[in-house]
Amino acid sequence: MSLTKLTEVEIAAAIAQLAGWSVINGKLHKKFQFKDFVAAFGFMGQVAIVAEKMDHHPELFNVYNRVTIDLTTHDVGGISRLDVELAQKIDSLI
Amino acid sequence: MSLTKLTEVEIAAAIAQLAGWSVINGKLHKKFQFKDFVAAFGFMGQVAIVAEKMDHHPELFNVYNRVTIDLTTHDVGGISRLDVELAQKIDSLI
Amino acid sequence: MSLTKLTEVEIAAAIAQLAGWSVINGKLHKKFQFKDFVAAFGFMGQVAIVAEKMDHHPELFNVYNRVTIDLTTHDVGGISRLDVELAQKIDSLI
Amino acid sequence: MSLTKLTEVEIAAAIAQLAGWSVINGKLHKKFQFKDFVAAFGFMGQVAIVAEKMDHHPELFNVYNRVTIDLTTHDVGGISRLDVELAQKIDSLI
Repeated sequence: MSLTKLTEVEIAAAIAQLAGWSVINGKLHKKFQFKDFVAAFGFMGQVAIVAEKMDHHPELFNVYNRVTIDLTTHDVGGISRLDVELAQKIDSLI
Repeated sequence: MSLTKLTEVEIAAAIAQLAGWSVINGKLHKKFQFKDFVAAFGFMGQVAIVAEKMDHHPELFNVYNRVTIDLTTHDVGGISRLDVELAQKIDSLI
Repeated sequence: MSLTKLTEVEIAAAIAQLAGWSVINGKLHKKFQFKDFVAAFGFMGQVAIVAEKMDHHPELFNVYNRVTIDLTTHDVGGISRLDVELAQKIDSLI
Repeated sequence: MSLTKLTEVEIAAAIAQLAGWSVINGKLHKKFQFKDFVAAFGFMGQVAIVAEKMDHHPELFNVYNRVTIDLTTHDVGGISRLDVELAQKIDSLI
């Protein structure tokens, strides 16, 4: 299945199935908060493995117990089904 | 407080407060099982941070979703209060 | 030693001893690039351990093989000697 | 390509191309030593990602700055080409 940029309608439908994700600056976006840095890092390590396995990598921002993730697909110039899949896999880690 | 080898009575008292730890081959020992390798690795990453922060490192064995941890204190030739503290911190990660 | 905000002169002197670090938006700032995501993540894992051991945490941004680090000390409202120490320790990882 | 157990001749040929690997207890085996625990953990994090991406996981043992890796393929009851591939990928991390 070739990779395409999702339409606004498709993105809205995808977000309706995802808890806490929104579209910010054209990217799937979510903020996570953990009890401390150690827990945040445990999460980031898992995100790293899941992302590399998909060959699809997030923008990851961390400071102390907070992690912010932005997902977009460079090759299609927007959000693709890969971003939605990665968002689902990230949520399943928690 | 200087570091000493705990007596058998002290170790027994410590283990009574710890869930799932036993003494095997003179080391505090516990097996952990996770839903998959990604979860096991997230745990190991957290153990690594906690251990380095204490300057006290476990023997860590991993295969797929299983992690085995053995704790002993080389400097006292046995189990010390550091091993008990690290065991408590490891349990608090879960 | 109490923690204080470094003066501009002190920061300039510190940066002169650090390779690749500058002050951006009032924070010690450096960009790192690795051969791939796996190498970038190996680096981030080490930064995490070093930071937690110092109880001083960076702002960490990662996308694929690039890692950006910003250092500041919330308690002093600027850059402190802790940021300089963490920058040195991060550089020593490479 | 179906997965088969490598013959002794095939294993010997593979090991001849790998630095520091031997067969111990029917597994591809190598010991690694790093300057400290932080470096050892950075390595283990990378091994974890590479392994999960292959869906082929090592036996990993760590204590302080030392990491021991054993590779075998449960489904064939011995060493397969997957173990040789993972050994190559692990070596390329260093």
